[in-house]
Amino acid sequence: MTGTASKNHLRLWLRMLRTTRNIENILREQLRSGFDTTLPRFDVMAALDRSDKGLRMSHLSRELMVSNGNVTGIVDRLVKDGLVERIAIEGDRRATLVRLTGQGEIDFGKMASRHEIWIDQILGVFSSDETDHLLEKLDKINQEQTEDLS
Amino acid sequence: MTGTASKNHLRLWLRMLRTTRNIENILREQLRSGFDTTLPRFDVMAALDRSDKGLRMSHLSRELMVSNGNVTGIVDRLVKDGLVERIAIEGDRRATLVRLTGQGEIDFGKMASRHEIWIDQILGVFSSDETDHLLEKLDKINQEQTEDLS
Repeated sequence: MTGTASKNHLRLWLRMLRTTRNIENILREQLRSGFDTTLPRFDVMAALDRSDKGLRMSHLSRELMVSNGNVTGIVDRLVKDGLVERIAIEGDRRATLVRLTGQGEIDFGKMASRHEIWIDQILGVFSSDETDHLLEKLDKINQEQTEDLS
Repeated sequence: MTGTASKNHLRLWLRMLRTTRNIENILREQLRSGFDTTLPRFDVMAALDRSDKGLRMSHLSRELMVSNGNVTGIVDRLVKDGLVERIAIEGDRRATLVRLTGQGEIDFGKMASRHEIWIDQILGVFSSDETDHLLEKLDKINQEQTEDLS
């Protein structure tokens, strides 16, 4: 079953891991030096920014792709900093939604546009066609794996 | 600075993250069900397997790409299970090397060949040419980033 092809796929997997780790380290460093913030904090704000009405904490934890960290602790800090607020859910007294405040949206907007530029520079080695092609392939992997696991 | 191209690169980055997370989850599950072991444990054994003479703990921590975890705790367990041994370093009384035992090599060999097959199946969407091309591109990213950061 194993041979040159599988050795190359293995090499690709290790390279993918190394690359995502490297890119995360760059983002971590840029967020620190440019915005005095952390990657988990950015990830929490990004997840909240993608949701219109806010998210339950359980949903927020699921949404986070880059790092889990202590989501509750991160949200507590963001609330304290006035960037996130907790709001009651009608008909569910025990749960709350968390969402960005107006100031949170403004702050996140600034970071998000810089983040987009950093990523564009890093992944600029991929042409537009290559990017589309790779998006398709990665989609296929994610779909197949989801099917296998379900 | 931002536009369709950068939006697509951003999409690619998020897709890369999601894919590596998904693949790691699959590996985690397969290692658990097939070998009753964990991904950090597999990673430690893989790093030791790549080294001929064994590694210092500090070097081992640097080597690990998938997860940091508590390397010391993992090594302690592997030693207890007879898969890893600590050996004295000549001329350095305070440091030790860790390396796989004979049994550790045998056990790791079995896991590694299954791991290669899993990865080959998952990344089989990439043809041989695509794999080579992608390896080159990722290399380029890793090189550029290392230069930027140095």
